[in-house]
Parts: sequence; C-alpha cells; structure tokens
Amino acid sequence: MTELLICGASFKEDERARLETAYPSAYVDGPDDMASLDEATRAGIKAIAYKGHKPFGGEAMDLFPSLGVVANYGVGYDAIDVAAASARGVKVTNTPNVLNDDVADIAIGMLIAQFRTMMRGEAHVRSGDWAKQGEIPLNRKVTGASVGIVGLGRIGREIADRCAAFKMDIHYTSRSEKETPGWTYHSDVVAMAAAVDVLIIALVGGAETVGHVSKAAIDALGPRGVIINISRGTTVDEGALLDALEQGRIAGAGLDVFLNEPNIDPRFTALDNVVLQPHQGSGSVETRRAMAELQLENIANFLSGKDLVTPVN
Amino acid sequence: MTELLICGASFKEDERARLETAYPSAYVDGPDDMASLDEATRAGIKAIAYKGHKPFGGEAMDLFPSLGVVANYGVGYDAIDVAAASARGVKVTNTPNVLNDDVADIAIGMLIAQFRTMMRGEAHVRSGDWAKQGEIPLNRKVTGASVGIVGLGRIGREIADRCAAFKMDIHYTSRSEKETPGWTYHSDVVAMAAAVDVLIIALVGGAETVGHVSKAAIDALGPRGVIINISRGTTVDEGALLDALEQGRIAGAGLDVFLNEPNIDPRFTALDNVVLQPHQGSGSVETRRAMAELQLENIANFLSGKDLVTPVN
Repeated sequence: MTELLICGASFKEDERARLETAYPSAYVDGPDDMASLDEATRAGIKAIAYKGHKPFGGEAMDLFPSLGVVANYGVGYDAIDVAAASARGVKVTNTPNVLNDDVADIAIGMLIAQFRTMMRGEAHVRSGDWAKQGEIPLNRKVTGASVGIVGLGRIGREIADRCAAFKMDIHYTSRSEKETPGWTYHSDVVAMAAAVDVLIIALVGGAETVGHVSKAAIDALGPRGVIINISRGTTVDEGALLDALEQGRIAGAGLDVFLNEPNIDPRFTALDNVVLQPHQGSGSVETRRAMAELQLENIANFLSGKDLVTPVN
Repeated sequence: MTELLICGASFKEDERARLETAYPSAYVDGPDDMASLDEATRAGIKAIAYKGHKPFGGEAMDLFPSLGVVANYGVGYDAIDVAAASARGVKVTNTPNVLNDDVADIAIGMLIAQFRTMMRGEAHVRSGDWAKQGEIPLNRKVTGASVGIVGLGRIGREIADRCAAFKMDIHYTSRSEKETPGWTYHSDVVAMAAAVDVLIIALVGGAETVGHVSKAAIDALGPRGVIINISRGTTVDEGALLDALEQGRIAGAGLDVFLNEPNIDPRFTALDNVVLQPHQGSGSVETRRAMAELQLENIANFLSGKDLVTPVN
C-alpha cells in the first residue's frame, strides 16, 4: 500500500530518493497534479511530504480521505492552509530550528556585503579595474551599526546574537517584550525603523505579516537605511521598497526573498545598491540534509503512531 | 617654513586637504620623488605623512636632515624601513586599532560569501538564471566551522570574537599562548592547519612573516580547507596557494590582499572558488577618517613636542 505522497518539483534527487527508500510512495510535482492520481492510490495516502511554495489548500487535501499529516520541508509553511488542515484533522509539521543558523548567516553575509560593497569589490578585481582605475569608493562601517530585528523569533534571535558580536546597537520588535541582554524593545515597526539604520526582517510568512514592513516603516528608516530580508517576499511592501531604492530614499537592501520567486520584479536587477540572493538562506548541504531528515522523522513518527517532532497545529 | 611632507599618491583629496590645512606642506607621489624637492624645502621637513606600499628606506630619509617622524597611514608599516628610521633617530607611527573592526568585518564577509557562494548567488539572480534554471547548488554551512586564526593580535582577536558568535571551534597561533575563552592554541601553523577547515591570516606584514602560511600549511589544510587573508599578500606562499586552488587541493579562498597589488596574478581571476576584494579591509568612510585623524594627531603631537599617540619604534 502506498502511504506516502511526495509533492514538490523542488525536491532534490537525493531527498526524493531518501523518502522513496523509506516508504512505498507516489510522486507529484505540485498540488495541481494531485487530482491526476488514481482514486485507489489517493485512498491509501496517509502522509504527504511537501516542498515548495505552491498553495496547498483544503480542496486538494480532500482528495486524500486517509490523510493524517502534511510534513513540510522548510520552517515556513505559509503555502499550506493550516486552518483547512486542522478542520480536517490533518496535522502539519515543519522543519524549524535546524535552519536557523544558515538563515542568520546569510542575513549577516548580505549585511556585510551591502555595507562594504563587496559585490562591487569583487567585480572591480575580476574586471581588472583595480589595476586600471585604483581603489573602489569608500563604503560603510558595519561594526557599531544600529540594527532593528523585525520579529525576534528563533531566527531573529540567532541574527541578533551575531549582530552583538559586531558591537551593534540592537533593537527588536516582537509580539511581546523578551528577556534580552540590553536590547531595545519596540512594539511598533515604524517607531523602530526611525531609531535604527538597518532593518532585518525575520518574521514568519503568511497572511498575518503581509506588508508588515510598510511604506511608512520604509520612509521612517530614512536615507541611511538598509533593509535585509530573509523571511518571505510578502513581509515587506515590495513596491514601496523598490520605489524607495530607486529614488535613493533608503540606502540599500540585501534580499534573499521576493514576491513571485524566482520570477522576481526586474526593477531589482537594475539597482546597484542591493545584494540579491536566490532564496538560499537554508541552502547549505548540511542544513538541507537536516531538514530532510526532520521531515522524514515527522512522517515516520506519524506512520508508526508516535508523537510528531515538530507539529504546527 | 614647510615642516610637513605629504607622501603618497593614494591619499584621497579630502585626506590631503586636511593635512594641508593643518600645516604648510609639500607633496610628493612617493619616495622616488623625494630627491626632486629642492634642498631648502627638504631641510625644513620635520614630519612625513606617509601612505602607500612603496618602500621608504634610509637613503630617502637621509634627504631630510631635520626629519623626526614618519607618520604612516595604516596599521601595516612594512613599506617603511623602521630599523633605518631608528638608526637615524626618526620615530615611526602607524594607525592601529581604529581599523580592527573593519578588517575583521571584511574577513567574516569573505568567509560567509565563500562558504555560501554568495557571488554566484548574486550573479544567478541578476542574470535571470534563477528563473530559467532554478536553484544554485547547495553550499556549505558557516556556523560551527572550525577556524584557525593565524596571528591572534588585535585584528585576529576581533575576528575570533566574531567567529565565536557563529559558534565556531576556534584555534589560533601567536608568539605565545593567550588568555582566551576555551580557544585552542597551536605553536605551529602547519599543525593548526591540519586541525581546522578555515585559516584566517591576521599576521603583521614585513620580512618576518613572508611565506608564513607555507605550502606545507596549505597541504595540511586539505580539500575542505579555505584560506582567508586580510593581512598582506606576502604572508602566504601565493604560488603554492594558486596551485592548490587550481588543483582543488583546497576548497577555496577569500582574499583582500595579494602580491603586487593592484596588478595581481591573473591566475586568481580565472578561479571560481575564490572571493576577491581590492584591499578594502579598512575601507569604510568612518574608519579611513579615523585613520587620517590618528595620523594627523601623531604629527601634531610630534611638532608640538608632545608624546606620540601610536609609536612603533
């Protein structure tokens, strides 16, 4: 009996092979292809290993009468309609924590690269312009910057801990004030933006945080302001961000996430004050393996009647 | 009376203007042009504000019978023959400490960029390949790496403190064991290279450290090894480094310094496993201003008979 459905064209070969080795399984590229599975197969599916950003809602879940768990690959599960899952008695799991370090590392990497114009530096050396034209323009000191972490969850905390080693003045927003070593809490992102040079967005995705870093927050950040986003493209007003970057109303950005990835707004690639990464926050070999193992562990625990490791509902 | 000679084509306009505003001064591009100054001017010069990497030796110093101080712009003063200066009763000053943070920041920036293939990531987004070809290959986790700091001086210490925030296993070499929070001391760089994944070179330049990171050290580092250099091109056996990078005997490098800068060996730009920066370690607006101010302070103190702030001999 096929109990597992693997869903997601973005699964790497080895990830898919690991799942297929563990359980007899069917495969589809995405939720839109689920209806094409024959009814007998669908009837047997108890677990879905999910990866990707395509919306997976209640209607698709209803194709699987025995479905008990949707195990998402990734910490962000905004593609999955959790309310619809809960209404059907379907559990959802994700892969938190194992990717915190990687995502925080990319946030700091983009911050340093943006402040210190490292992409320009690299091009300057590789093109031979260093020898022909001399030094690149002076840039901006990273250490001691004032930084506002938007969302001091698990990833935000890892980012803040790294920022502390760069002697930064640390501010944060979160649902409630947290116990921190002298960091400044703000209940409002606009007020925080006015107090800092750098906003690092570490929110969860989903409907609740759409446009959370608003035009007002971007305006409050001001001409020395830099926005780093490692969360989801949805968490910032992307149109307002592009306007501000184009008009020099903020200094720059470092972005690993975008609306409509990977078909991002071409206005981004016309900018030279932004560091652009292809949503690779968790993209180390080590971390992706840990995420795949945690996804499989959730599935295995479900199918053998044990407690889920990282349930979200 | 012209008491100050400004020497160095690499002085920025505002840096030179600040010195010229402070004291009646003469200017030359480098030590080779000093003999072209008329004898009366040379006779009056008591202080030289120096910037650059051209050798400045005893013969050039002898052109200035009243010379009392050579104030170097930069922490590394390997271009200046300090022994020759001392033999003539000439003091040498540099600009330490004010640039430690910037240089450490660039070291960490290059480490993250190398491990996480950020230059490739940036090109992937900007070229549109992300939309056409999908994700970049998985790369390498930064957090938790084992790192060996070659030279735990003031800059090395700043680098190590930042590495600690990335939960790295920290090893170091230095002339003697230091008081550290659980870091591992090695008296020998080859032994340390065998124990770590990353070598970060934070040595002083000069004759004593030429080729300190030897072919043997590079070989000991092994195929997962990465070399980060923010010190001087001289401190590593550059030929051996290039061979190892080309042959995949080490994994990569992040280099801000090279032999014969800015005319670097073209073999570097043919490599895709290296991050290359144009010796911009201290190149933030804030830090360069602090360096210029410290240089001027040393000159001012000397000319007014006060103690030098940062003498090196």
